[in-house]
Amino acid sequence: MNHYRDAFLEHLNTCITIREPRRLYEPIAYILQLGGKRLRPILTLMAADLFDTDYHKALDAAVAIEVFHNFSLIHDDIMDRASLRRGKATVHEKWDTNVAILSGDAMLVRAYQLLESYPPVVFAQLAKLLSQTALQVCEGQQWDMDFENQKQVSITDYLQMIRYKTAVLVGAALQMGAIVAEASTENQKLLYNFGVTIGLAFQLQDDYLDTFGDDSFGKRIGGDIIENKKTILFLKALTLADESQRVALLQHYATIIDSQEKIVAVKALFEQTGAAEKVRQEIENTTNEALEILKKLTILAEKRKQLKDFALMLMSRKV
Amino acid sequence: MNHYRDAFLEHLNTCITIREPRRLYEPIAYILQLGGKRLRPILTLMAADLFDTDYHKALDAAVAIEVFHNFSLIHDDIMDRASLRRGKATVHEKWDTNVAILSGDAMLVRAYQLLESYPPVVFAQLAKLLSQTALQVCEGQQWDMDFENQKQVSITDYLQMIRYKTAVLVGAALQMGAIVAEASTENQKLLYNFGVTIGLAFQLQDDYLDTFGDDSFGKRIGGDIIENKKTILFLKALTLADESQRVALLQHYATIIDSQEKIVAVKALFEQTGAAEKVRQEIENTTNEALEILKKLTILAEKRKQLKDFALMLMSRKV
Repeated sequence: MNHYRDAFLEHLNTCITIREPRRLYEPIAYILQLGGKRLRPILTLMAADLFDTDYHKALDAAVAIEVFHNFSLIHDDIMDRASLRRGKATVHEKWDTNVAILSGDAMLVRAYQLLESYPPVVFAQLAKLLSQTALQVCEGQQWDMDFENQKQVSITDYLQMIRYKTAVLVGAALQMGAIVAEASTENQKLLYNFGVTIGLAFQLQDDYLDTFGDDSFGKRIGGDIIENKKTILFLKALTLADESQRVALLQHYATIIDSQEKIVAVKALFEQTGAAEKVRQEIENTTNEALEILKKLTILAEKRKQLKDFALMLMSRKV
Repeated sequence: MNHYRDAFLEHLNTCITIREPRRLYEPIAYILQLGGKRLRPILTLMAADLFDTDYHKALDAAVAIEVFHNFSLIHDDIMDRASLRRGKATVHEKWDTNVAILSGDAMLVRAYQLLESYPPVVFAQLAKLLSQTALQVCEGQQWDMDFENQKQVSITDYLQMIRYKTAVLVGAALQMGAIVAEASTENQKLLYNFGVTIGLAFQLQDDYLDTFGDDSFGKRIGGDIIENKKTILFLKALTLADESQRVALLQHYATIIDSQEKIVAVKALFEQTGAAEKVRQEIENTTNEALEILKKLTILAEKRKQLKDFALMLMSRKV
């Protein structure tokens, strides 16, 4: 694990150069050096390793994935009017919106450019996967914004939204490693599906921990409730609630106040309706589904175990 | 000429599909159907034709160029707070800034995706050229914004800015057609350089006509002067002005008023300093430089003439 991260960070640094015009390139260096778990690029390297390919060969693809991910963070932060990212000022706060738009654009282009070191056939596969994924990420972000203004959101639509906004990039990160390793199409597909499924489980757990996590979660517990976010917990609670619970929940979500009482009351409703339990089950089922896909991969048992352990480590996080 | 435009427009329509989420895809259809001269995609088709390749083969590349160009317009319009584009509401005005950011992002991705119909080796060349160009366009836009807040801008820096912001895309449009036609690297390079050079001449003329054009120019004559834009006319005038002219010019550019008198006075200064004459010469020299490059292309004389006529038509425009 750590050797992947170290190799990634070392390579990332060689890819970051601040040149003129500085207001275009400084924000790129800034966001890429803010840290983060680097899960996606680690998965790219790990995937190449699964197929007995020197994982260093996948470093450019890993950086491309991370650069793309950070492009989407910069633009999402503008759209969500977020002032903090990983505890530091967002790009549009530190500079301004124009800088955030343009340096984000440049990062999206850089993500493609980083793939140019591969031979044409490999490059074409990587770039196509990047485009497909990028367009889905845009669609997911648009759905997410649409849902804010939508009275009713179905659980199916919500799952589709997080699949596009978050999960497909995890799948793409893994498949890129497999493409670089020239794995079979079948193995590539399995790895992609495993990534999307574990990505879904991860995002559902993120929703769950925002309400039921402990202080180590990093974000403020109950933040989604305060912001009236239509998370999986809220949507599930609505479908399970009796009439009085439903009215109570909707009343809480009609208020715009930042109070601990609101968090406590909504949390209780999530428990009483059975939504919390249902979501825990859904997270477990989705994780198991991912592990089932893993079994079909035709790779060495020890390699499979490495990936399985990583997935379980991800899902056992309290943070 | 017209057969290129017709074929392009017909193909463009098949590439525009409005699907869900509508707020992502409707703005894309909107901006692509606003019209415009379609010069860049026409150049792509013409370039393929130069090398006796069925220009229909270059249609996807032509649409990619146009989609990329329109992506840059959407994001530039946000940054410039422009409310009109081709006489219609800009995307961020008609929808909102978030929609404009995200649908712009999706268009940048779509530009790459449109190139996927080509074989891997051709795709790789096209995508690399698109990335190189896109990054330069971002740099050009950043320089342009930087110059607004900069007291002094050198003519060298200004020329570099318009080269990146505008001219390289004209070069890329032509080279893409040549890549699809599998023209020699030498011919590709010549065509690219021809495009960049004629693109420069075109942009210089755009600056010139903004002040010295007639009513048919489409934009309001003197608009750059009202907005205190540091155009080639202004920068040249500063280098040629005597002390009193210099003081007068800077005083006019220190005011923020919309008056016909200001236009008349600055226009007179552009003439008196000799800047207008110098810029006319520069446009002519740059155009001639482009035509010289054209002579080196190893293509049939009649094909060369077609491209030359197109360039001369472009440069003789009063609009």
